[in-house]
Amino acid sequence: MPAYTPPLDDYRFILHEVLKVHEETAIEGYDELTEDMTGQILEEAGKIARDVLAPLNATGDDQGCRLENGVVHTPAGFRDAWNLLVEGGWPSMECDPEFGGQGVPSVLNMTVGLTQSSANMAFMMYSGLTHGAYSAIHTHGTDEQKRMYLPKLVSGEWTGTMNLTEPQCGTDLGLVRTKAEPAADGSWKVTGQKIFISSGEHDLAANIIHLVLARTPGAAEGTRGLSLFIVPKYLVGADGGLGERNALSCGKVEEKMGIHGNATCVMNYDGASGWMVGEEGKGLRAMFTMMNEARLLVGMQGLSQASAAYRAAAAYAKDRLQGRSVTGAAEPDKPADPLIVHADVRRLLLDQKAFVEGGIGFLCWVTMLLDAEKRHTDPKMREKAGDMVALLTPVIKGFLTEEGFRLTVNAQQIFGGHGYIEETGMSQFVRDARIAMIYEGTTGVQALDLVGRKLALRGGQPIMTFFEYVKGYIRDNEDDLALAKDFLNPLKQASKDLQQAAMFFMQAGMKNPNAALAGSVDFLHLFGHVCMGLAWARMAKAAHRAIQEGHGDRAFYEAKIVTGRYYMRRVLPETGLRLARIETGADPVMDLPADAF
Amino acid sequence: MPAYTPPLDDYRFILHEVLKVHEETAIEGYDELTEDMTGQILEEAGKIARDVLAPLNATGDDQGCRLENGVVHTPAGFRDAWNLLVEGGWPSMECDPEFGGQGVPSVLNMTVGLTQSSANMAFMMYSGLTHGAYSAIHTHGTDEQKRMYLPKLVSGEWTGTMNLTEPQCGTDLGLVRTKAEPAADGSWKVTGQKIFISSGEHDLAANIIHLVLARTPGAAEGTRGLSLFIVPKYLVGADGGLGERNALSCGKVEEKMGIHGNATCVMNYDGASGWMVGEEGKGLRAMFTMMNEARLLVGMQGLSQASAAYRAAAAYAKDRLQGRSVTGAAEPDKPADPLIVHADVRRLLLDQKAFVEGGIGFLCWVTMLLDAEKRHTDPKMREKAGDMVALLTPVIKGFLTEEGFRLTVNAQQIFGGHGYIEETGMSQFVRDARIAMIYEGTTGVQALDLVGRKLALRGGQPIMTFFEYVKGYIRDNEDDLALAKDFLNPLKQASKDLQQAAMFFMQAGMKNPNAALAGSVDFLHLFGHVCMGLAWARMAKAAHRAIQEGHGDRAFYEAKIVTGRYYMRRVLPETGLRLARIETGADPVMDLPADAF
Repeated sequence: MPAYTPPLDDYRFILHEVLKVHEETAIEGYDELTEDMTGQILEEAGKIARDVLAPLNATGDDQGCRLENGVVHTPAGFRDAWNLLVEGGWPSMECDPEFGGQGVPSVLNMTVGLTQSSANMAFMMYSGLTHGAYSAIHTHGTDEQKRMYLPKLVSGEWTGTMNLTEPQCGTDLGLVRTKAEPAADGSWKVTGQKIFISSGEHDLAANIIHLVLARTPGAAEGTRGLSLFIVPKYLVGADGGLGERNALSCGKVEEKMGIHGNATCVMNYDGASGWMVGEEGKGLRAMFTMMNEARLLVGMQGLSQASAAYRAAAAYAKDRLQGRSVTGAAEPDKPADPLIVHADVRRLLLDQKAFVEGGIGFLCWVTMLLDAEKRHTDPKMREKAGDMVALLTPVIKGFLTEEGFRLTVNAQQIFGGHGYIEETGMSQFVRDARIAMIYEGTTGVQALDLVGRKLALRGGQPIMTFFEYVKGYIRDNEDDLALAKDFLNPLKQASKDLQQAAMFFMQAGMKNPNAALAGSVDFLHLFGHVCMGLAWARMAKAAHRAIQEGHGDRAFYEAKIVTGRYYMRRVLPETGLRLARIETGADPVMDLPADAF
Repeated sequence: MPAYTPPLDDYRFILHEVLKVHEETAIEGYDELTEDMTGQILEEAGKIARDVLAPLNATGDDQGCRLENGVVHTPAGFRDAWNLLVEGGWPSMECDPEFGGQGVPSVLNMTVGLTQSSANMAFMMYSGLTHGAYSAIHTHGTDEQKRMYLPKLVSGEWTGTMNLTEPQCGTDLGLVRTKAEPAADGSWKVTGQKIFISSGEHDLAANIIHLVLARTPGAAEGTRGLSLFIVPKYLVGADGGLGERNALSCGKVEEKMGIHGNATCVMNYDGASGWMVGEEGKGLRAMFTMMNEARLLVGMQGLSQASAAYRAAAAYAKDRLQGRSVTGAAEPDKPADPLIVHADVRRLLLDQKAFVEGGIGFLCWVTMLLDAEKRHTDPKMREKAGDMVALLTPVIKGFLTEEGFRLTVNAQQIFGGHGYIEETGMSQFVRDARIAMIYEGTTGVQALDLVGRKLALRGGQPIMTFFEYVKGYIRDNEDDLALAKDFLNPLKQASKDLQQAAMFFMQAGMKNPNAALAGSVDFLHLFGHVCMGLAWARMAKAAHRAIQEGHGDRAFYEAKIVTGRYYMRRVLPETGLRLARIETGADPVMDLPADAF
């Protein structure tokens, strides 16, 4: 199994030299994010990831979750690890202090999450879903609901789930059939079957708080008839103690391609007691509070697997002796040179490295915007940041998971045949990463959200804000000639491609929405690359500055510049191809009759 | 599990309307390839694939192979299926009639193989490796060896393996440590450990003929010291009967990401009796007889999984109701429209369809060249065809497996969450397809062979032959205006990109070989796309002709043209991006110090 070493230097660089979170006084709580504070927390998180979570990753994959007599048993070691997390207060970091949380800004919590998910994605899902349930109740619940459920969701003594999918409905939630009927005491009786419920049933926590989307009697058809319900596994007394078992059960644990350590359950509700969260018929809105947050987390997961897989692949490439450098033996005393002498092995690794490091920059930037949306002192800035988060959430989700998967496959490739056998752990990274392109809305659904909804949001304000930001960044820095040539010019070109694509959608999409939707995933990738280019330009600038000022490890900063240059030269030009595809419009995609497929 | 329906119409179209094999009188044996004959054989092969092999695919994945007391048990049903293949004479189709084969041209055998491998890739590997062993002995063995081993390898009563890899050596065969020491009777004693041996031990056949690469005493270091040995599981008597068990055993069956139905074995040779094939020190040459053939077969495997996965995804997209068409409900009577109304679902499917159908055209064309190399009446044409096969083998292997995997993943994506659970079989297609990018030389190794060896072969004759062929094709057809606009012009551009890339390699690669190798995989993809563009141009021409002549099913031919146009417009422009990457040369890839990874 690959050992996991968290990239603490990269985190420090991004947080304190690129984003300079500690200098950001206008976002509440950022003043606490000193280099010392983030360093200590990330080092501690890194230790747990390396020593506790990573060694359990293969166990989880091997053993999976077993359903026996209605009880789901998680893999050996998961309970102890969960208790350790709860005792350390890790699940509560970002939560509201009123309910026992630590109120730490998201940007730090996300970095901790990336560290933990890199080490063991399936295990960390128990915590991720719990945070989603926390958010939905925190945003839409009554005071009583908050008092009743939040403290233990915050601490991690209880966990949470999201129940949307049914056999006949995945993306199309308008088809939900699960019913909720009013009971005399103001509660509801929930009946129906939900599938693909992550962390649906398990033995880690004393209670599981299910958030269930269901249809009330006489409600409208489609999504407007849906409401959201809290349906706990054990009923909760007024004193917060656990009461009787609710009428719900796990019918099956799915056999999946990966994330075996997380129990993906069929959940059956047989008149289970539930309590409505938010207003009747507004269930989807409440669910989307969880969903938007979950989408950022899933983007992070895609990045996390590529990150862990890259680290394993780089170590292997430096260790494994095979063949000789074409320019003469690099290590003539050994029977062969290490793999890393070979140009194509380096290409595979550089694709990964440039994505992983740029991806951390991209993800942390958007998470900082999320903090600004919630915590900025200036309401105008909150609004602007909110626009950007809304716009960039589907990009983070779609781009980081698609590229994350592709590059995890590349990391596996470095191992040759050894990557295909389970022993090395590379197959698990690939199998686990695969789900991130699917759940919380497939890539296609993200692209639809981006092109069909977010581009037109508030008269196109968010996308204009984005373009202004990129333009402003280029303008402010173009006097830096080294930066301009290698970074700003390619970024300018890529951003122009993105603008041209958006313009095409506006013109052609007016006449035929399919002219925009046919290119929507290409647009998502194009957008992702522009964001990565921006991240690399910012990172290169910070690295240049450090070298000029002569502080820190020069080799570290030079590596950033070289890696960034690789991205700008070899990866970013993909934007041109994406634009060309987008401009072919609807016909190539729509011309073929359905029965000719 | 997805049902499997072989694309008999596509085969007929490629063989008889595009390649017109039945009109090719200069290749020996092609006169027998009438539409009736190929149709009957492919229909029969398709039946077995659909009714016997496909239903066993999930069984193989589920049960895998078990090692118990030295015996490897294949999954339930595999023995019966193997016996059925042997009784039907399927393994012997392409083999030499002198040893019981049917002498059928490769082009038909490959199409049969594609059908069978689409239905059950892991199972068909037992046959594929056997054919490799047959070829090595047929080409390099003595008359006695041929008499002794070939008839039963041809019939499939015995199976074969290739033993190259050892723990310390994959690609770099110069590191092989397995030893062969001469015995008094002219045989050899083989000692060493081989790993990743596909079909290494199993219960399908009475004997297994291992071909083992080993080093003789005092032999040169590196690959020039290697010889190839026949090492049978059971010794074979002069009468052809089975004698005592040889000193070799299976030490372990590997747990792999996929192809669970095939036993991937650690093989231990403990002074096992072996017989040298070909000359001492020429083992690699003899092994490459198997290897080149195996590379075409592995390319076919990549295509086969994309083909099967596409068919399943297309069926699902027409059946699964989810969401509504943006241009108004397509099936207003139903609760939702089928997935196929959505532009992005169509894009995913068209990427697959265009690859799968174009890939069959590409693969069959190269296999026809292989037949021409072996069977053409004109020695000049044999040489020319041989050049093309040598050049295109790494392209077939690398491109069809990389794109095949990518598009199998796309097919899985159509299923949403249902694609991630094992029940639907989509995960298996992905996991099985993944190996094809690795074994018989990774994509990087194929690209090295292509750029480092094949481009310069005989003063660049093969690549010049290829460019002349493409140019000639365009010149001969440019009067056809419909074809010229939609197909020949894009092909011309793509071919120009390929030429420019080859030119760049010649110039920059002279000074620094890494300038060529850094772009070698990009070149392989670029080359693959040009071949696919050529295949689609030829297919479009045949379809146009059929429509003009008014024969057959017009919708079938129109679908070919629409699908081809999709390829030319949306996929082929990738060549420009590949060229741009290639022209960045060595620096972006070589600049970063090894310890900065």
